[in-house]
Amino acid sequence: MAAPRLQVSRRLRATPYTSRVEALGVSGYSVVNHTILPKGFRRSVEEDYWHLKTHVQLWDVGCQRQVELRGPDAAHLAQWMTPRDLGGARVGQCLYAPLIDERAGMLNDPIILKLAEDHFWLSIADADVLLWAKGLALGGGLDVEIGEPDVWPLAVQGPKSDELAARVFGNGVRELPFFGFGRFEFRGRDLVVARSGYSRQGGFEIYLDRFELGGELWDALWQAGADLDISPGSPNLIERVEGGLLSYGNEMTRADNPLECGLGRYCQLDESIDYIGRDALLRIAEDGPARLIRGVIFGGDACPPCQHPWPVSSGGREIGYVTSAIWSPRFEQNVGLAMIARDYWDAATEIRVRSEDGLERQGIVSELPMVKA
Amino acid sequence: MAAPRLQVSRRLRATPYTSRVEALGVSGYSVVNHTILPKGFRRSVEEDYWHLKTHVQLWDVGCQRQVELRGPDAAHLAQWMTPRDLGGARVGQCLYAPLIDERAGMLNDPIILKLAEDHFWLSIADADVLLWAKGLALGGGLDVEIGEPDVWPLAVQGPKSDELAARVFGNGVRELPFFGFGRFEFRGRDLVVARSGYSRQGGFEIYLDRFELGGELWDALWQAGADLDISPGSPNLIERVEGGLLSYGNEMTRADNPLECGLGRYCQLDESIDYIGRDALLRIAEDGPARLIRGVIFGGDACPPCQHPWPVSSGGREIGYVTSAIWSPRFEQNVGLAMIARDYWDAATEIRVRSEDGLERQGIVSELPMVKA
Repeated sequence: MAAPRLQVSRRLRATPYTSRVEALGVSGYSVVNHTILPKGFRRSVEEDYWHLKTHVQLWDVGCQRQVELRGPDAAHLAQWMTPRDLGGARVGQCLYAPLIDERAGMLNDPIILKLAEDHFWLSIADADVLLWAKGLALGGGLDVEIGEPDVWPLAVQGPKSDELAARVFGNGVRELPFFGFGRFEFRGRDLVVARSGYSRQGGFEIYLDRFELGGELWDALWQAGADLDISPGSPNLIERVEGGLLSYGNEMTRADNPLECGLGRYCQLDESIDYIGRDALLRIAEDGPARLIRGVIFGGDACPPCQHPWPVSSGGREIGYVTSAIWSPRFEQNVGLAMIARDYWDAATEIRVRSEDGLERQGIVSELPMVKA
Repeated sequence: MAAPRLQVSRRLRATPYTSRVEALGVSGYSVVNHTILPKGFRRSVEEDYWHLKTHVQLWDVGCQRQVELRGPDAAHLAQWMTPRDLGGARVGQCLYAPLIDERAGMLNDPIILKLAEDHFWLSIADADVLLWAKGLALGGGLDVEIGEPDVWPLAVQGPKSDELAARVFGNGVRELPFFGFGRFEFRGRDLVVARSGYSRQGGFEIYLDRFELGGELWDALWQAGADLDISPGSPNLIERVEGGLLSYGNEMTRADNPLECGLGRYCQLDESIDYIGRDALLRIAEDGPARLIRGVIFGGDACPPCQHPWPVSSGGREIGYVTSAIWSPRFEQNVGLAMIARDYWDAATEIRVRSEDGLERQGIVSELPMVKA
């Protein structure tokens, strides 16, 4: 059946860019952090994939809400919330950071922006990290202000991103290192602009800090890109799966720990720093994780969307499950992300995937990002 | 333009009843607590309204997730989280309870089910109360287990609810008092069944505690209601607005306190108990709230959906805003819920509403629930 329509209300918040994406014919939405996320325009996911890999796109990612920590205990709270060592972090740095609970279960995977020694934004995936941070601070008696500022990210993604961003913000943006941010002037405001984004095609995220300027910011970028084949876009499932970009709530839940999610390089696995879940995570690290998120490449016709995890088997044994999957025009097969048991996670292991349509499909385990042979 | 379609994924969770509502032609979804909420079937909202007031409906409200508190400090944590005095609460009682933060801002408005002296479910509106509770417990060193159990409410609503529920659960359900719950056998399980629900038409909420039984539970009720004109349904916006039932995220946010939300009768406004936000709430209570959620009844053609608060004025002064609104076939006018400043909140105060389509509409303030003259 056709996907049912999304019923709108104040609770499912619009963004500063909603009027623009609606004028451009947005065809689907998702909901992230109580905010609508455009998920498709007039072209197919495949056409969008090739466009993203060739040109430049504007993505309304206002749903990436910021949890602001500010004050004397801000740095302490930020470190308490993540296994990533924030000790050497510099102002102007973006840090991808797993957040975990006392059992080492994943709670979120934000990008942390260090704005000052006592000032952080956590640019979050879909969960109310604000409530987690407030609860920890209130329960623990910390001296820190926690709130959701009037900040609405807009992403510029694709190989022509540098050219487009430079036309609007000046050539200085070209100098930003990967996961670095600076302040760039727009209409008299100094906006945080970071070299980051939820694709492997390069680009920027602009942290607009005034809702009312959204239309102007969108229009300025849109007009500057007229000769660059600019298009509205959104996180592209094919590109994300091939690139091994995880999605909280899809690949990762509280039932998964960061080592299982392949995030060990973001975890300080000794007692040099203190953070929630450290003892649990160190115990898991002793033997290593029993399973790991991997790529899978599998055959048959184009698979349906993955709403419920799909069982993966090998030699008749159930060895894991797929959490996201889609047809890849580049591999000319289906590609997916899957949680796979240790004895089976080597690349090229032969597997079977039972998709939601009941079909058994033959395939293999793959590295992430996926590399075409 | 037509409402864009909702893109599905594992992250936007299906419920045990999703297959049934899809087979019955669900036409729209909302998203609550990372879970899909059916919001319309083959009939109009008006037709659904009359049906709900006359017959009986099954509502997939699996999105009303449960936050379970269990253990020695469970009662202490529950009381810390709400201004409502839980001291006299009995096992088997449902308690509507505002949750507030340290500034007395609304965080949620769950129904708390007291299952045992050390065991509670918070049946929540749209926000991750689980993270709030876990943060408080971890920060404060409380001895309590907090989790989201495998519990998926299904609502039976409408005047024929007693007859339908009695056919499936026995005549004992007829004896349940309003906001009381008991345990009733279904397929060998003792399910919590409460006399409650998000309408003013009476009915029950069944707390199914095993996902896999969802289809059987739905089918048993559906078949038992064949001669009762049973229908699939969902919270009805006309009925909810006329009945003055608030929606967290629409009428209430962290920027609003419970006195402004008309929830003073659920707040212990002295120092006899301790809870988060008590000092802030007592300060607000000294002078009383400066504004209050009220009904509004206003003219013009059927209004559009309210996505952004609509300004309300009186005598040229802005005095509040509408947060939910829809055409009422019973009043033959538009009805809405609005936050209104103190000097203007008396019933029959003349107002103007500027709706999202740019129209100025004349109307009046109304009591809640709304009473037709």
